Amino acid sequence: MFAELEELGKQARQVARMLRTLDTNVKDDALRAIAETIEENEFDILSANSEDIEAGRAAGLDEHMLERLLLTESRLASIAADVRSVAALPDPVGESFDARALSNGLRISKRRVPIGVIGVIYESRPNVTVDIAALCLKSGNAAILRGGKEAANSNRALAGAISTGCEKVGVPREAVQLIASQDRALVKDMLTANAYIDMIIPRGGPGLHTFALENATIPVITGGIGVCHVYVDAGADAQKVLPIVYNAKVQRPTVCNALDVLLIHSSVAGDLLPKIADDLARAEVALRCDSRALAILRGHPLVSAAGPADFDTEFLSLVLAVRVVDDLGEAIDHIYRHSTQHSDAIITEDYSNAMRFVDEVDSAAVYVNASTRFTDGGQFGLGAEVAISTQRLHARGPMALRELTTYKWIVLGDGQVRA
Amino acid sequence: MFAELEELGKQARQVARMLRTLDTNVKDDALRAIAETIEENEFDILSANSEDIEAGRAAGLDEHMLERLLLTESRLASIAADVRSVAALPDPVGESFDARALSNGLRISKRRVPIGVIGVIYESRPNVTVDIAALCLKSGNAAILRGGKEAANSNRALAGAISTGCEKVGVPREAVQLIASQDRALVKDMLTANAYIDMIIPRGGPGLHTFALENATIPVITGGIGVCHVYVDAGADAQKVLPIVYNAKVQRPTVCNALDVLLIHSSVAGDLLPKIADDLARAEVALRCDSRALAILRGHPLVSAAGPADFDTEFLSLVLAVRVVDDLGEAIDHIYRHSTQHSDAIITEDYSNAMRFVDEVDSAAVYVNASTRFTDGGQFGLGAEVAISTQRLHARGPMALRELTTYKWIVLGDGQVRA
Repeated sequence: MFAELEELGKQARQVARMLRTLDTNVKDDALRAIAETIEENEFDILSANSEDIEAGRAAGLDEHMLERLLLTESRLASIAADVRSVAALPDPVGESFDARALSNGLRISKRRVPIGVIGVIYESRPNVTVDIAALCLKSGNAAILRGGKEAANSNRALAGAISTGCEKVGVPREAVQLIASQDRALVKDMLTANAYIDMIIPRGGPGLHTFALENATIPVITGGIGVCHVYVDAGADAQKVLPIVYNAKVQRPTVCNALDVLLIHSSVAGDLLPKIADDLARAEVALRCDSRALAILRGHPLVSAAGPADFDTEFLSLVLAVRVVDDLGEAIDHIYRHSTQHSDAIITEDYSNAMRFVDEVDSAAVYVNASTRFTDGGQFGLGAEVAISTQRLHARGPMALRELTTYKWIVLGDGQVRA
Repeated sequence: MFAELEELGKQARQVARMLRTLDTNVKDDALRAIAETIEENEFDILSANSEDIEAGRAAGLDEHMLERLLLTESRLASIAADVRSVAALPDPVGESFDARALSNGLRISKRRVPIGVIGVIYESRPNVTVDIAALCLKSGNAAILRGGKEAANSNRALAGAISTGCEKVGVPREAVQLIASQDRALVKDMLTANAYIDMIIPRGGPGLHTFALENATIPVITGGIGVCHVYVDAGADAQKVLPIVYNAKVQRPTVCNALDVLLIHSSVAGDLLPKIADDLARAEVALRCDSRALAILRGHPLVSAAGPADFDTEFLSLVLAVRVVDDLGEAIDHIYRHSTQHSDAIITEDYSNAMRFVDEVDSAAVYVNASTRFTDGGQFGLGAEVAISTQRLHARGPMALRELTTYKWIVLGDGQVRA
């Protein structure tokens, strides 16, 4: 094992045992001190980020990578605000639930406790450093972070501010540790460091997730890959269709909850598809159409025939696959076969169809008449998020404080033995 | 991939989509039909089990393996009763929770849904076949079971009864499928069959768990390894000590929640250890003692010096490691270093010590004044169990119906888009 990782791991284990029982007030003080330190260090952090952006441009990173990497004054202010909002959230640790008395007099309950040490492997977005630090700290976990080399300067500046903030209120600076080495072999070591890390969260593209799944012996939270669908039903309100489709596709196309595939009922496609295409043309969205959609939109600028992979692609850019279906069942079947179970929506005024969609589509977030862009810890009222899980164990969808905890059973007796 | 596994996997996926929305009544009817079929087939099942026992004896299985493998009339009756008690439990599927309205008018909630297809790899105990089938069925999951070769006949007979029971009420017999092949290479294939299996539960010794962790790309629930402690505090009630220690060690020594390590406060060790040793001598429990316990018990039959591994061993037999400690902190530290975080207990009448033990010992089940043998789905009122998790993700301790589910977020809107 890499010496750096072993060193960080030992410190994390030690700090985790102390964080586990830390007072909520102290944790909240640390979070507010972190927000403050980030604001105080704004100039340094943005300078560090500029270096990363410059290096990224020189290395030929594409625009959507650069957009994810970029910090601005307003993004930094919103990062600090998110940290304060985490401080304002209730502490999940210590919560007692599922309590009951058994007939033999034993009193059993579950108590929420931190997971321990969280390892996070992520790529370009430096805000992840702060989001995760804040959520781990509030939930009583130690964190070991391994950011991407393209954000190395930004992450170092942000992690420095986090450690300084912790120290200001007497929390060990090792509560959140950033791995300095950019050696890729270290990632593999990290995935098998069972002695030091209890949960691994990979945040990045499909390559990273597959690598983590194939190499980890520590439990991994997979997620963040969203091939997201909107199905426009025969009973859709046309007034809702255009804003939802536009918002889901265009508002921030580089993230996982952005729309990738539009399914539309054949009875309304002739009327609505041209309007949708015109609307999306404002943002120059390219449409990759199945044969029936193509027949309706032929001649429209930015329209082309869909290739075989287009209905299984997370575009992360202004591209949308379009397919005409003949009924709700066909739409649900399409989603069953192609969705990554992230976020899928129906637009309809038909009550039974809405209920059937909600029952039968088994994604982390299932929507009726709303944009898929809401699948987000902040938007769901969780304060921030460490990841959006698309796996089925432990947590699904946005993961925040509670999802960084586990529980223990507490059994209070008076001498009971098993018969 | 093994053709048999691929075939079973495809069928399981198909059935899982149907089980997901199956009425509770139908699932309960299936469970009652399974219990009935097991009772009707008692003679065949016990005959099949006798063949396994005979073959096991010929192959030189040790007594505790044979004890785990054995089915008797009363064990079979209790297996059938457990299935009926699962039928009587509330169905976790469909439960709505964490519902709230956001300020933008979106109504969000979580709905409990089945995980999908559960793969279980287990060793000698044939009752696992039925426990898991019942819990998976009730929670709307399909199951693919891979039992040990030493229980092959028993498992075949039980799985046959399960499929017959399902068919009696129109549930597809493929809801629960037993893998016929005993090729060990198939297990590796099963651990990476992500297309067909959503969660793997290994039930067996440390070797199986390590193998699953190292080879699986599917999320694995690890557990069942219990190095369990009882700490006898200075403030212990001597009337409770003997029954609890005896019960925890002797009542069923071959299972994971049985006691392995006794820690005892130095101020009461001189008085209580000889009494405990005498009491345990009724069951011929061998004591492996640290130097201070040895000094107290020297000359006592069945007492010897502990070796270096004895405080990290799950004995699964009538052996108990014993250590004298000077205070509660030393006991908690010992448990922190040596426990597998399964089940650990304190015996004390001191309120503050009880609370501190409960706060600081971070095991799946933490006990005050009760036997560790209660860590069990049935005993905790869950009806039965698929496993006892000692990992920190998804579920800890006994896993039953709710732990075989996940949730989806449901978001009901009226045209909302993200600002």
